[in-house]
Amino acid sequence: MIKVGIVGGTGYTGVELLRLLVVHPQVALVQITSRAEAGRRVSDLYGNLRGHLDLAFSEPDVAALSACDLVFFATPNGTAMQMAPQLVAAGCRVIDLAADFRLRDPLQWEQWYGMAHACPDLLEEAIYGLPELNRPRIREARLVANPGCYPTAAALGLLPLVEQGMVDTSTLVADCKSGVSGAGRAANTAMLMGEVGESFKAYSVPGHRHLPEIRQTLAGVSATPVGLTFVPHLVPMIRGIHATLYARLSMDPGDLQAVFESRYAGEPFVDVLPWASHPETRSVRGVNHCRIGLHRPQDADTVVVLSVIDNLTKGAAGQAVQNMNLMFGLAETTGLDQVALLP
Amino acid sequence: MIKVGIVGGTGYTGVELLRLLVVHPQVALVQITSRAEAGRRVSDLYGNLRGHLDLAFSEPDVAALSACDLVFFATPNGTAMQMAPQLVAAGCRVIDLAADFRLRDPLQWEQWYGMAHACPDLLEEAIYGLPELNRPRIREARLVANPGCYPTAAALGLLPLVEQGMVDTSTLVADCKSGVSGAGRAANTAMLMGEVGESFKAYSVPGHRHLPEIRQTLAGVSATPVGLTFVPHLVPMIRGIHATLYARLSMDPGDLQAVFESRYAGEPFVDVLPWASHPETRSVRGVNHCRIGLHRPQDADTVVVLSVIDNLTKGAAGQAVQNMNLMFGLAETTGLDQVALLP
Amino acid sequence: MIKVGIVGGTGYTGVELLRLLVVHPQVALVQITSRAEAGRRVSDLYGNLRGHLDLAFSEPDVAALSACDLVFFATPNGTAMQMAPQLVAAGCRVIDLAADFRLRDPLQWEQWYGMAHACPDLLEEAIYGLPELNRPRIREARLVANPGCYPTAAALGLLPLVEQGMVDTSTLVADCKSGVSGAGRAANTAMLMGEVGESFKAYSVPGHRHLPEIRQTLAGVSATPVGLTFVPHLVPMIRGIHATLYARLSMDPGDLQAVFESRYAGEPFVDVLPWASHPETRSVRGVNHCRIGLHRPQDADTVVVLSVIDNLTKGAAGQAVQNMNLMFGLAETTGLDQVALLP
Amino acid sequence: MIKVGIVGGTGYTGVELLRLLVVHPQVALVQITSRAEAGRRVSDLYGNLRGHLDLAFSEPDVAALSACDLVFFATPNGTAMQMAPQLVAAGCRVIDLAADFRLRDPLQWEQWYGMAHACPDLLEEAIYGLPELNRPRIREARLVANPGCYPTAAALGLLPLVEQGMVDTSTLVADCKSGVSGAGRAANTAMLMGEVGESFKAYSVPGHRHLPEIRQTLAGVSATPVGLTFVPHLVPMIRGIHATLYARLSMDPGDLQAVFESRYAGEPFVDVLPWASHPETRSVRGVNHCRIGLHRPQDADTVVVLSVIDNLTKGAAGQAVQNMNLMFGLAETTGLDQVALLP
Repeated sequence: MIKVGIVGGTGYTGVELLRLLVVHPQVALVQITSRAEAGRRVSDLYGNLRGHLDLAFSEPDVAALSACDLVFFATPNGTAMQMAPQLVAAGCRVIDLAADFRLRDPLQWEQWYGMAHACPDLLEEAIYGLPELNRPRIREARLVANPGCYPTAAALGLLPLVEQGMVDTSTLVADCKSGVSGAGRAANTAMLMGEVGESFKAYSVPGHRHLPEIRQTLAGVSATPVGLTFVPHLVPMIRGIHATLYARLSMDPGDLQAVFESRYAGEPFVDVLPWASHPETRSVRGVNHCRIGLHRPQDADTVVVLSVIDNLTKGAAGQAVQNMNLMFGLAETTGLDQVALLP
Repeated sequence: MIKVGIVGGTGYTGVELLRLLVVHPQVALVQITSRAEAGRRVSDLYGNLRGHLDLAFSEPDVAALSACDLVFFATPNGTAMQMAPQLVAAGCRVIDLAADFRLRDPLQWEQWYGMAHACPDLLEEAIYGLPELNRPRIREARLVANPGCYPTAAALGLLPLVEQGMVDTSTLVADCKSGVSGAGRAANTAMLMGEVGESFKAYSVPGHRHLPEIRQTLAGVSATPVGLTFVPHLVPMIRGIHATLYARLSMDPGDLQAVFESRYAGEPFVDVLPWASHPETRSVRGVNHCRIGLHRPQDADTVVVLSVIDNLTKGAAGQAVQNMNLMFGLAETTGLDQVALLP
Repeated sequence: MIKVGIVGGTGYTGVELLRLLVVHPQVALVQITSRAEAGRRVSDLYGNLRGHLDLAFSEPDVAALSACDLVFFATPNGTAMQMAPQLVAAGCRVIDLAADFRLRDPLQWEQWYGMAHACPDLLEEAIYGLPELNRPRIREARLVANPGCYPTAAALGLLPLVEQGMVDTSTLVADCKSGVSGAGRAANTAMLMGEVGESFKAYSVPGHRHLPEIRQTLAGVSATPVGLTFVPHLVPMIRGIHATLYARLSMDPGDLQAVFESRYAGEPFVDVLPWASHPETRSVRGVNHCRIGLHRPQDADTVVVLSVIDNLTKGAAGQAVQNMNLMFGLAETTGLDQVALLP
Repeated sequence: MIKVGIVGGTGYTGVELLRLLVVHPQVALVQITSRAEAGRRVSDLYGNLRGHLDLAFSEPDVAALSACDLVFFATPNGTAMQMAPQLVAAGCRVIDLAADFRLRDPLQWEQWYGMAHACPDLLEEAIYGLPELNRPRIREARLVANPGCYPTAAALGLLPLVEQGMVDTSTLVADCKSGVSGAGRAANTAMLMGEVGESFKAYSVPGHRHLPEIRQTLAGVSATPVGLTFVPHLVPMIRGIHATLYARLSMDPGDLQAVFESRYAGEPFVDVLPWASHPETRSVRGVNHCRIGLHRPQDADTVVVLSVIDNLTKGAAGQAVQNMNLMFGLAETTGLDQVALLP
């Protein structure tokens, strides 16, 4: 059994992690910390865990956490980088579900996140936890930077095209839509149901923190410079991301469907739907899958890739468990074999 | 392995049954019938089943179904009673998720469902599949009538009070609210999102088919006649039932909380929350639990019981699987240990 | 033109008041105050007012407000009672949309609202602004206590029965359901869409502040003591209240439909639907109407009244405008002739 | 008073037209036809019209309709073209809210709508009813083709850029999102709340009928060929369209904000928000406005235009009333001065 600790278990990413871990056959949850809720039973805060989990939140304490085999950080940005160095030094492996270790360049991190990076050395060692890209390195990693939700959906949809050099990488467009749980559980007028229900809007069009993350991933596999327009939108639903991705073909792509099927053959969590499918976000509600549909409308030069994930599962906690499975030599799908809740 | 067939797998009850059965460790799904969709792969209709199920819908055929150990009917009312006699005669056990075998009195059935009962003999043998009431008889049953969704929520909330003779059974009120999936998946203008979204209403106040069913269950355990006012409402959400139950105390009830906790001690799927709790339907989304909160507002003579279930799970498919587990000697919770999807 | 000021215009009650007042033909809006937003243009906060309103929020200032003919308070409880005495003394009339002047008994107010009443003298003078009950007194009032949302829906549904002495007033039940805008626009984790979307629950069952208000209204017209069980619920939609009201007949009621139609004949905003109707909340979305449907299920002794309003309109701002029209001698429907937004 | 008839008043476009017309000061509604509902009072079908409209649906009858000054068609595609020739010949003016007269080329119409055009001569005379483009011709028109919902939102967002020749018209992208009322009120499993609630998806990516319509509008003002990728999506809400429009600059655009403000100066229903705004669909709920926000993310060469309308108002019935006002010499905003319902 893997002894697991969670730092910051009160947000939506935290409760999703708990939902997956309490039924994971190889995990022993030993500690869940929350400064604000210390002493309160976790299942009092999250009624769905009644009968599944008998722990109470505790104060975060590096010494106690060091006894874990693995610590997940489900904290606001800037927390994990304060505690990870000690934990890693103590032999504890770490998966950060926040953004602290996602951007390889500390200056770029500082520019987008508004604070200096606390441990640039460790940042250099961190592995970006997209198994479809970095599986071997994740297996060996001491510290995994779990990808953002939009970056997961966008990268999985664009990687095959960019890797094959088939598209003009300077004019990519990622028009992405997310359910409201992506904004977290903090008290915030802007996320009241009275504000976001029955309405739709874009946000952060001038610049969203996931832009450099997507660009970094694509640049890592592209022979040509990556120019990307990324527009996130808020959908009046709770879970789900839909990325609508536009790329201009720079060559005859041949059989696009085959390119994607071949790229993702054997991937347990990427499902390439039949040509010209329209994946629904509900088809991945609560599960770790990314489902992809491919289009070339009117046989013109623009490829449209539709990519859906659950932002809390493949976009956060599910992918973190997938990474854990890899790091600890388990079958990659262990504890991740649920069926999406539909309807 | 239990060889299982499903008749009528295209509705919401059907897909929920499939969601549970494809990961059930003791079930082999051998046949799923649908006249309308015969020949189509099930996972083409329900994208969440891609990768979990490789069957296609077939034409309903009693001979082929007779080879099953168990057949579930997830059909419109009036279908199961046509096919069940032959199946039972062939040694196949049957769980009907529709209403054909719920009312013990065939005349009452005819009155509420508008057709003569096709097999009153078998009706007499059928066991009402509420495990919390009929567990031993379900174990031995050849034919189980799976309870309705409202009747499950209402009965579990009222049984302890009625069994103990603590309340005036002539003035019970069940004010119940259901998500829209309870209305099924048939094309119906009244259930379009444009019609039911962002609105709330009562329906069938003059008389709903679940009224005699709830009354029958309560009458079975009551020493006094049961008078019940039942008002169902439609909530603009997909899953969940919330029953708000009102009963006038006819005696000093002593410790009400203890009455309920004692009644449901050992019940794996009934969770009595701490006194004066307000259960949320999301706390049971996708799981087989009923969660109950007890109140006695202003210390007056009216007890208010709040009872929530997922109408498709404990209110339909989950309870059917629970009944199957009982009928085949499995642990009652087998395949039903998921955690509710929250948020 | 009536010179109107609004204190506290940033909440949902405030913006609804503005929506109605900017197109009211007899109103000149001269001041909208908000400590938090002072200096900001109102239409920057509420995009729907762009082009309709050119004012900025100002600091609340009694002297400036005193120049108004009428001041609306759309503030948290406890604010209006601090400022109303000076305004009234200055000759300015006041409508309070909060609860400060709703309960006639200052001790009861203190008990339910947790603070001493600041002006019991003025409280004694205040008129409860339910036009269907107090129209003549509202016309003359200097200070109107605009009713709560639940109390409006419940009272309009129960008044005819109680006034006629037809029902057992000791066992009334008001099972009420509200959209989330009733909880206001304050930052509050419990009202995030991630928390309240796709879920349903009761709240405040032990005791809600609208309980004594409904009881007071009914007691005022009842010859017998009023015992009321009031259970509010939260519906995952933005606007609308549905009250499901249960009353035991204490006599042969004769033609119930006629009782209601006669009681509300000539009422511009109460619409008694044909017998056994099921009103939808969307049928009053954005308008000042209350629509009522009457039932006597299974011809038993329990009458069920279904009463719907828009909590922000007839349940708050619309009723306030109706009261203003009465106070200033205008036709009661002036500025309130919109058609509900459906779908 | 304009004597107005409506053919096909039972769908969402029809009820929206009624909502606007029953309070329009210059309109006398004389006939509303529906084959399916003939004889039924309109306000029985649409409860929001109770007290506002006393008509019953009648059988469609060209002779009776000819007595109107104006007939609106709120019918399925293919109906208006059967009846419009007789009506126009009889001196009755016509506004078709369906697609029969939107595409100028009858062969293209046949290709996209799957039937031969019934009156190509009249098609040639029809005016495309986008007032911001064709105001003078609409004033004189006998027959107006009311634009589609997506085409209205997309065209208003792109027109200034294309008219000025500032962008590469061969690589335009219109990523559009619509509430479910755009799919109409026909019984359709795919639009049940159980199917589309809490989920998001694209549809018709290979080719949607609004593609040629948008292309035609833009081509009419472009000096260079128009290549457009149009991807519509379904949002789990009832009303609203959000168009996210991407265009590559082909020259230094100077002050983009000024270009749009100047283009729409004096337009009563186009509201250019301050630079870098994010318009919400709720800010136009129930009103005839289009609100536009402009962005140039990261100062790169891609302009992003955000354009929101209510699909039933500016995207259908509201624009039809605007066209009527123009055709009959009324002030363009008559009867269209409501404030959007927010929240």
